[in-house]
Amino acid sequence: MKPLEGIRILDFTQFMAGPMATMLLSDMGAEVIKFENASTGGDNTRYRKFIKDGASSHYATRNRGKKSVAINMKDPKQVEFFLRLVKDADAVIENYKPGTMEKFGVTYDRLKEINPKITYVRISGYGQTGPYADHAAFDATVQAEAGIMSITGPEGSDGFKCGASVGDYSGALLGAFSVAMGIVSALRSGEGCCVDLSMMDALIFMQENQLSVYKVTGKLPKPSGNRYPAASPIGDFMCKDGIPVMLNISTDKQWADFAKVLGQPQWLEDPDFVSMSKRAENFRKVEAEVLRVFADMTSDEVCEKLQSVQAVYGRINNYETLVNHPQVLYRKTFVNANYANGISYSVPGNPLNVVGMERQMDYGTAAIGENTMEIMGQVCTPEELEQVVAPVQKLAEEKAAALYAKS
Amino acid sequence: MKPLEGIRILDFTQFMAGPMATMLLSDMGAEVIKFENASTGGDNTRYRKFIKDGASSHYATRNRGKKSVAINMKDPKQVEFFLRLVKDADAVIENYKPGTMEKFGVTYDRLKEINPKITYVRISGYGQTGPYADHAAFDATVQAEAGIMSITGPEGSDGFKCGASVGDYSGALLGAFSVAMGIVSALRSGEGCCVDLSMMDALIFMQENQLSVYKVTGKLPKPSGNRYPAASPIGDFMCKDGIPVMLNISTDKQWADFAKVLGQPQWLEDPDFVSMSKRAENFRKVEAEVLRVFADMTSDEVCEKLQSVQAVYGRINNYETLVNHPQVLYRKTFVNANYANGISYSVPGNPLNVVGMERQMDYGTAAIGENTMEIMGQVCTPEELEQVVAPVQKLAEEKAAALYAKS
Repeated sequence: MKPLEGIRILDFTQFMAGPMATMLLSDMGAEVIKFENASTGGDNTRYRKFIKDGASSHYATRNRGKKSVAINMKDPKQVEFFLRLVKDADAVIENYKPGTMEKFGVTYDRLKEINPKITYVRISGYGQTGPYADHAAFDATVQAEAGIMSITGPEGSDGFKCGASVGDYSGALLGAFSVAMGIVSALRSGEGCCVDLSMMDALIFMQENQLSVYKVTGKLPKPSGNRYPAASPIGDFMCKDGIPVMLNISTDKQWADFAKVLGQPQWLEDPDFVSMSKRAENFRKVEAEVLRVFADMTSDEVCEKLQSVQAVYGRINNYETLVNHPQVLYRKTFVNANYANGISYSVPGNPLNVVGMERQMDYGTAAIGENTMEIMGQVCTPEELEQVVAPVQKLAEEKAAALYAKS
Repeated sequence: MKPLEGIRILDFTQFMAGPMATMLLSDMGAEVIKFENASTGGDNTRYRKFIKDGASSHYATRNRGKKSVAINMKDPKQVEFFLRLVKDADAVIENYKPGTMEKFGVTYDRLKEINPKITYVRISGYGQTGPYADHAAFDATVQAEAGIMSITGPEGSDGFKCGASVGDYSGALLGAFSVAMGIVSALRSGEGCCVDLSMMDALIFMQENQLSVYKVTGKLPKPSGNRYPAASPIGDFMCKDGIPVMLNISTDKQWADFAKVLGQPQWLEDPDFVSMSKRAENFRKVEAEVLRVFADMTSDEVCEKLQSVQAVYGRINNYETLVNHPQVLYRKTFVNANYANGISYSVPGNPLNVVGMERQMDYGTAAIGENTMEIMGQVCTPEELEQVVAPVQKLAEEKAAALYAKS
């Protein structure tokens, strides 16, 4: 059994941050019902590269395992159907622009009135309130606003964003946590909660270390390449075979083991290297010494020696070596997201290893509105289904077909 | 009331990933009891810069709000005291090197025997099992192994790590989620769960987009500066006043609004710019055009115009402008971590805005073992307290005093 089996999530998310939150919940066993706007053909990642036979990899990679319901929230009748579903659901989650759910007539007060146990999680770029609440936000622009660009990249540069969408994904993780937390609260007190979380706040969480240092020193941090200012050697060091190895040698114990295994006992006598702060101060000298020694060793030789003393080092993988990484193969990291039409994509699987829970290797991926009739059938009369729901589903399918024809 | 009030977490974490997980739980109301190794003077961040009167900023920023208990897990008696606490606790969390808790005699089976509802969350670099389980891991080396370095940094470079410790913090967020999820499971089924999670898996979660693309195309992604390959203009664009603005203009609607508000209707006639994929293909021409227009406008003028059409843009903040950011001031992002001796640090606060929960601005920060007698007193006899617990606390204090004297 999966830990969240029997939990029902009503999911109004799209793009990246929201869907990754609900995918994690789905991976853990929750039933995630993804509501998609019928009039736009649903989540626009359905129409992003890569598409085979109307099946998008972009959609599959973060929506595998979920159910899809087509809906038009501008129709009060359909909003009412959604609210009927709220009665027996555990959580509602959304990542629209602030104000959108309100336009649909959905507020926490209304949800709570229907179901006091409901948890309502809202993910946005900057938060539901405040001077930036109405700023449009994508990962790259929030990385800019949140200062993370100012500390990433080569020394001397003006800074670069992180190549991964860390704003979206950290928002996603906070979102999944918030849903689980709200359910804990509901199970214990009978009342869920409403969480307003932002990618900006998530990225600030991810910089607590440097931000706290800045608050003490007032000294602006700058991009420092692969170094950390507080210790040395930290960074990438080239070996004889042209392959660099990443090091993170900080404590005195680590430094002593490192010097010994590399056959450089004189490092331990050098007053410039005597403490972590001394090595940090004299980092250019430390680095020159390490490079001198690595110049005579292949990266394999370096890694073997370092592993023998449990040094903190890493190989710098690209995506080819990453997907073939022994640990990635062992953990069965990649799984299949399968559409009913037979199209399948290899995508990262559930990131959590729950003891005793078998690793799921195959996940269904829903076509637009694949579950509309099933889910709405749970709360609608046959007349409502025929007169309201079926036409919406038909619209969604037509819209999707037209968009796929263009793409 | 905070959502996790009444939840008790027994916390064996140190450094960064683990403590940030339990700090989030503590922020949400859980009672977090941090067990610190008496013989080493506790979490070694207590002795990292910056320290005033034996109060470390490094420790405060990720341990504010927690209780501290000094313990020696090599003593089976003290392990037994810990196990007595397990009986009424909700979760145990640790981020030691795999195998360490086993050496202390602590396994999930043993915890479950004492309390079937317990949740046990284990954070490590690469996981508890597999060929890399015994690899030492710090953030920088896991960033290397997990491939995120290979997609970060300027175009043409070999790649750089993200300046923030995204491996640690994404592991922290998965850890906090796992605890909450286990508690949901315990409350519903009477049984918690054991989660083995790794920073490596967390970083793969954070790259699902690019990894899925790679799995389809087989084309190795490389660092692409501040661009995304799938759309343009995305990246930093210099303005007349020497201040760049970050743009993320992707859809046709966004492009049309952008062209119009900048007074460049001819862009909408240009066949090279006619679709998202065309603009991505001709990104150098797109960028040259944008730079031409921005060269005549200050960054304030650019932002004002872009905001008027709800364009997706951002100012590129450094830490000085970030801590004074209107949204950061509005959200009261920075709070105080206060030690009993009067030393206080300004640190990032709770990242979640829970509706109806007042923002806490002041947090206590425990000296080593500040709560040893209080917590152990709940499960020990007066004799045990006097003979076993008090001496451990004394040892911890002496060790700490000696380390502070050196630092």
